[in-house]
Amino acid sequence: MVGAGPGDPDLLTIGGMRALSSADVVVHDRLVDDRLLDCAPAHAEIVAVGKCKGGGWPQRDICALLIDRAVKGLHVVRLKGGDPFLFGRGGEEVIALRAAGVPVTVVPGVSSALAGPACAGVPVTHRGVSSVCTIVSGHGIDELDWAAIAAAPGTLVVLMAASTAATVAAALLAGGRAASEPVAVVHAASTPTQAVAWLDLETLATEGCPLPAPSVIVVGAVAASGLLDQLPRMAVTGSMRTAHCL
Amino acid sequence: MVGAGPGDPDLLTIGGMRALSSADVVVHDRLVDDRLLDCAPAHAEIVAVGKCKGGGWPQRDICALLIDRAVKGLHVVRLKGGDPFLFGRGGEEVIALRAAGVPVTVVPGVSSALAGPACAGVPVTHRGVSSVCTIVSGHGIDELDWAAIAAAPGTLVVLMAASTAATVAAALLAGGRAASEPVAVVHAASTPTQAVAWLDLETLATEGCPLPAPSVIVVGAVAASGLLDQLPRMAVTGSMRTAHCL
Repeated sequence: MVGAGPGDPDLLTIGGMRALSSADVVVHDRLVDDRLLDCAPAHAEIVAVGKCKGGGWPQRDICALLIDRAVKGLHVVRLKGGDPFLFGRGGEEVIALRAAGVPVTVVPGVSSALAGPACAGVPVTHRGVSSVCTIVSGHGIDELDWAAIAAAPGTLVVLMAASTAATVAAALLAGGRAASEPVAVVHAASTPTQAVAWLDLETLATEGCPLPAPSVIVVGAVAASGLLDQLPRMAVTGSMRTAHCL
Repeated sequence: MVGAGPGDPDLLTIGGMRALSSADVVVHDRLVDDRLLDCAPAHAEIVAVGKCKGGGWPQRDICALLIDRAVKGLHVVRLKGGDPFLFGRGGEEVIALRAAGVPVTVVPGVSSALAGPACAGVPVTHRGVSSVCTIVSGHGIDELDWAAIAAAPGTLVVLMAASTAATVAAALLAGGRAASEPVAVVHAASTPTQAVAWLDLETLATEGCPLPAPSVIVVGAVAASGLLDQLPRMAVTGSMRTAHCL
């Protein structure tokens, strides 16, 4: 189980690339770059199971596929965007695999929750500005205690937030966050189509997400223009050169 | 500015290794593995500036060193444990470098906040168990609003927590977290000396951290034995083989 990172193939780990280079089967999510898949051996079976609106495989079918190939003795790489254990449902898949007697090794990845802001020049913590970072998902927001989340100090990062951004922002305002609280939205972080929008919480609540999915939303003083004047948008790492296969 | 990951050289990114492989100067923290430093060119100047108790360079001197080498036209790699922007003071160094006219590219890394728990088999989020992850540092705890942090739902990860663990645990109990709340402590995640301890919040408050620094502490239901029975401790990734230099 390998975390593929936020998008740029250069943000895959060396261990992840090594696993990919020896895979018999690669089962990947929607947001995984094709250039990573090109690093799998020529004989490898590549299966896209990515979830997206109105598409993607049910979780049960994904687990069944992983188990089917693994019990045949094949080396299966489950390639997930970001990190497998932060809103990646990696734990569920590990449980299913272990229940089927399949040994699993996890290779953590660079999470979009941290790399997304970083690619926009936003440090999620910064001395004197924020020393707490809370990460939530924009999916399943109805189940969350937004009053408590709003009351937490520091930076809030919302993953997969494009479609529910207005609702999330309204909940944060209702929970006591200031209308003027700075917001940065990072779309497709670390990829050639990366885009960043700067706004405030009230604008997010009234106008919704200014950029389409996939987007990461950062709420808090680290997204303030005063800090960002000193930390302008950084270059995409790795210059989008094709990743070298190990 | 490169995030080195939690310890295992295999958890450096491909982009990070590429930067390291072409460095003229490598300025690194204490927790960076020697095998990564071996991947720098033979001519490269290697400077250890890592902070530790009673040692380490003042931040001002680190910035001065980076600027001095960079303005000489050298390719300087600032190698930080974990991710540079999550309690890595990366933002401060970027500001100092930009103020001196030095262009900076940031290569995000795998953070110990997520990879530490993962190496112990603990997913920081898990459907039906936790859908929020809050990350704080065990340093500078006096400045934090512990009542609000304790009230936040879901998983709490405390980095650099070994020496202040009892105080942190007491603050969480005072803020309303249950004495029986599960705790996992992960020492030296992903390295050959990795160790994991399972306890509860009250024990952490009364007995302090059962493992020495560097340790990551995970508080919350994801560290419950019921979940961990299904997610036993995972193998260290990459088998600690020497990282291949690109």
